[in-house]
Amino acid sequence: MEPDRLGVYFVLPDIEVSEQIALALSALKGGARTIQLRTKGASTRTTVETATRLKTLCAQHEAVLIINDRLDIALASGADGVHLGQDDLPVDMARRLAGEDIIIGASVSSPAQASEAVRLGSDYVAVSPVFDTPTKSDTGPALGLDGTRAICESVSVPVVGIGGIKNKHVRSLVQAGITSIAVVSEIASANDPETATATLAKELRLSLVQIGLSN
Amino acid sequence: MEPDRLGVYFVLPDIEVSEQIALALSALKGGARTIQLRTKGASTRTTVETATRLKTLCAQHEAVLIINDRLDIALASGADGVHLGQDDLPVDMARRLAGEDIIIGASVSSPAQASEAVRLGSDYVAVSPVFDTPTKSDTGPALGLDGTRAICESVSVPVVGIGGIKNKHVRSLVQAGITSIAVVSEIASANDPETATATLAKELRLSLVQIGLSN
Repeated sequence: MEPDRLGVYFVLPDIEVSEQIALALSALKGGARTIQLRTKGASTRTTVETATRLKTLCAQHEAVLIINDRLDIALASGADGVHLGQDDLPVDMARRLAGEDIIIGASVSSPAQASEAVRLGSDYVAVSPVFDTPTKSDTGPALGLDGTRAICESVSVPVVGIGGIKNKHVRSLVQAGITSIAVVSEIASANDPETATATLAKELRLSLVQIGLSN
Repeated sequence: MEPDRLGVYFVLPDIEVSEQIALALSALKGGARTIQLRTKGASTRTTVETATRLKTLCAQHEAVLIINDRLDIALASGADGVHLGQDDLPVDMARRLAGEDIIIGASVSSPAQASEAVRLGSDYVAVSPVFDTPTKSDTGPALGLDGTRAICESVSVPVVGIGGIKNKHVRSLVQAGITSIAVVSEIASANDPETATATLAKELRLSLVQIGLSN
């Protein structure tokens, strides 16, 4: 995968479907390159329908749709990929079931987990959490810049950073090896989600250009 | 599918994994021919592990393991099939993703839903709920013997009855066209789950023999 493909990676909050679609559209207009759908609460059928709608929007904006945890929903909706936490399907099992064409990402919190995820077939890893965040309460301690850098140095696939990341952190994270910035509230809670995305996307692109990973 | 293949169909309650395994084993020893695992609450990884253990037990007893809703978990664990409610994956989508070898069942509450499920690729349908039951609160009104018979007459695949079924109902349900009896509490809450299963299994077999559907 090209290192800058995932870009600004917007993880949708668990809200009404119509609001999810509206937020995703704002983020895509602002330049998000990845949308992730989590599936807590809603039925499988409803989630597949939501994912199918998001897939259309993402395709129109040349962005990637990733489904959290649920490989069945990813496959049923034609999503581009699935994101697996340490409590989800093992990466190698997902790869065996889904084939080579699907993008598989894995949440990791150490270089050992990162290397293992790549060995098992992950196309990218997500360092989680980079900083403390109120959005997720079930994560481990924040890894910070140093922990993030150690993970980036342990793998050769793209590394997404997630957890409490704001615009001001982007440059130093990219210098640590991060190539994609995942956020929830930084976009979802912004007064103007499209502009918030555009601001992040610009900062990310300039930071990647600076280290020669984008043009 | 042979009409008597699913037999006594034990739907595991949502309890601790070790208790689920123990209950499943008792039911299998008592002659259950199908075990269904529902997946509320636990993580995907834990559920795959539970399903994989159940699959081994089922295979040892020549029984069938069915996973409720989650096709990803069914595929990852090597389960024999997946059971789909009206809010789960559409049957045709599951069939397309999983291929011809997997058993697909669908919950239905009318002849129209039953015919549609079979048209889309269901190997069996489950009439739900046959009677009122405290185990599930999200189901429609009880279909009773007449409603059950109407569904059985609308399809040529095996029909499972679920919802408040006790031993005393088995004969009349088989005469209405039911070929498999699904229960939760009738086994799970019994003082002796193995004997409770054996009692149900014997009544079901005798009832099927009486109408020439088993030997």
